[in-house]
Amino acid sequence: MASTVSISVDAMGGDHGPSVTTSGASMALRRHPDSRFLFFGDVDAIGPEIDRFPALKAVSEVVHCEIAVNMSDKPSQALRRGRWKSGMWRTIEAVKKGDADVAVSAGNTGALMAMSRVCLRTLSGIDRPAIAALWPTLAGESVVLDVGATIGADAQQLVDYAVMGGAMARALFEKTRPSVGLLNIGVEEVKGLEEVRNAGRMLREADLPHLNYVGFIEGNDLGKGMVDVAVTEGFAGNIALKTAEGTARQVASYLREEMGRTARARLGYFFAKPAMRALRRRLDPSRVNGGVLLGLNGIVIKSHGGADARGFASALGRGHSMVRNELQAKIHQDHAHLQPLPETGDGEFLARAAGAL
Amino acid sequence: MASTVSISVDAMGGDHGPSVTTSGASMALRRHPDSRFLFFGDVDAIGPEIDRFPALKAVSEVVHCEIAVNMSDKPSQALRRGRWKSGMWRTIEAVKKGDADVAVSAGNTGALMAMSRVCLRTLSGIDRPAIAALWPTLAGESVVLDVGATIGADAQQLVDYAVMGGAMARALFEKTRPSVGLLNIGVEEVKGLEEVRNAGRMLREADLPHLNYVGFIEGNDLGKGMVDVAVTEGFAGNIALKTAEGTARQVASYLREEMGRTARARLGYFFAKPAMRALRRRLDPSRVNGGVLLGLNGIVIKSHGGADARGFASALGRGHSMVRNELQAKIHQDHAHLQPLPETGDGEFLARAAGAL
Repeated sequence: MASTVSISVDAMGGDHGPSVTTSGASMALRRHPDSRFLFFGDVDAIGPEIDRFPALKAVSEVVHCEIAVNMSDKPSQALRRGRWKSGMWRTIEAVKKGDADVAVSAGNTGALMAMSRVCLRTLSGIDRPAIAALWPTLAGESVVLDVGATIGADAQQLVDYAVMGGAMARALFEKTRPSVGLLNIGVEEVKGLEEVRNAGRMLREADLPHLNYVGFIEGNDLGKGMVDVAVTEGFAGNIALKTAEGTARQVASYLREEMGRTARARLGYFFAKPAMRALRRRLDPSRVNGGVLLGLNGIVIKSHGGADARGFASALGRGHSMVRNELQAKIHQDHAHLQPLPETGDGEFLARAAGAL
Repeated sequence: MASTVSISVDAMGGDHGPSVTTSGASMALRRHPDSRFLFFGDVDAIGPEIDRFPALKAVSEVVHCEIAVNMSDKPSQALRRGRWKSGMWRTIEAVKKGDADVAVSAGNTGALMAMSRVCLRTLSGIDRPAIAALWPTLAGESVVLDVGATIGADAQQLVDYAVMGGAMARALFEKTRPSVGLLNIGVEEVKGLEEVRNAGRMLREADLPHLNYVGFIEGNDLGKGMVDVAVTEGFAGNIALKTAEGTARQVASYLREEMGRTARARLGYFFAKPAMRALRRRLDPSRVNGGVLLGLNGIVIKSHGGADARGFASALGRGHSMVRNELQAKIHQDHAHLQPLPETGDGEFLARAAGAL
């Protein structure tokens, strides 16, 4: 294993640009002193920011790029304007060239996905990439994917998501055989989409060594942390993710309102202040910041556009862990087990599955 | 308008059967003294329960049914065993015959949907029914549909859902032109499913007099109450609903944990107790209990199977309001405006839409 982890950073990405990406990197460096950084973007904007952190500056290189992808660019626009030369492209390309082990960007998700796909290409045997989110649960954290890379998925693609999510859970949670569930509407075998039912059969029959398929789960099982990996197609996954974020904020609002309504409640709030702070920390999206683009020839991390330095540091730290825990090798390893599909079972879906491999 | 509202009740439905359905009815009667009730089920089980509430007994009739639909019956089983003679069937049939204005059941959702469809049939011009949920929001309440009657929906079906949900919002929230949004993943026109984009175009061009189409919304807009009516197909809608329920419980758990962790926090909890009770009430699903089956020749309310008396009373009260506010007439009225589709716009989707009418 390399003695350092090299992280390429889209320095101009996100709502705050270099002020956040550099201070985030400085925080990440304190946590992971074996990191080094490659910043891509406007050298005049990045230079003064990085000067604030001498320790960071000592392990960083800044590569000047004229073009920045805007948060509002459509993926096709971003590719047309920014291919080869934008900071976002070069950040991804650094992974392809082997200059970096992982790429991190807080820029426009659609552009990042499109550029990563064009630049890195999908892993052999994987049809298309997915975005995986880390979901805070009562049991800790789960991997949930796809949260919006694409809409819809057939059975084989859902199986691929399960394999990639399982590898990510092994890399991050240090579990040898993470549990995997398929998100569905009802736990009975008869319910749900045909694709989801077929994916369930394929996962059960494949009985993968590194993945414990437990069956269907429902939306309310996500927060419980019933599985290490929850698999769904991108439309429902994105809606679930954003609904959960919205509901957490809604409950927090209710709580604030009720705690301010009477003198007695305000007194309670005074004593409960440290507890409220702890609660706020647990609900803070920056703690689990960092969606991961899975299924490409390289690891790309998407940070929230609005993330602060702590949030961006968390995304960088996530990338560091996945390199150290060999995410890509784990995906390859698990996917290899899928190739010789079991002979038993429904001929039609096996044929379809085989065709997709 | 009739001087009383007649409610047929599936007395044996739900986890608790007649003990909850009768005491719930007694509570609903106190709130809506112009109600009368028709209970269908085992007369030996219902009789003693109803005897506890003389005022309820005075306005109720009990109709004996040998057969009860089980919570675990599949829809096809329930129909085979329970058509014509089960308590659930007769509860729905009372609406068809005009003996009741609205039917309420806490029984098995799949069976209730299947029986309602077979018994009542869909409204003329409506392709298929939807289940609408009342979603508590920071702004009050919203109607969200479909939350799981069927999987997938084409553009015309989404438009129908918008019309039915709009009518329900008019009946319940007393707004003259409720706002309607289509649930999507991203607010830009370019994003999302083709069906959702086409439905958006159709709603914008139809410019209905009783419905203010505002565009796409995302999962996190639900809890804000950004629209009165949120429209989506049943798979994503069901996952969103259950994810929100799960997240609310998760945050409440975090709060309990933090409030018990230190002596200071426990003291805070002591003073904040009434505020916590108020919060619990706001998060209590029984407050907004009652999914509504829309798009049938009659109103059918689905109560949560695990609802207590207060929850069941809330579902009954919901039914009462919808009868009093003439939900069905409003759906007819709004849907009639859809028939002459505007001449402008994309020929292909108009042809498709016209074909569905």
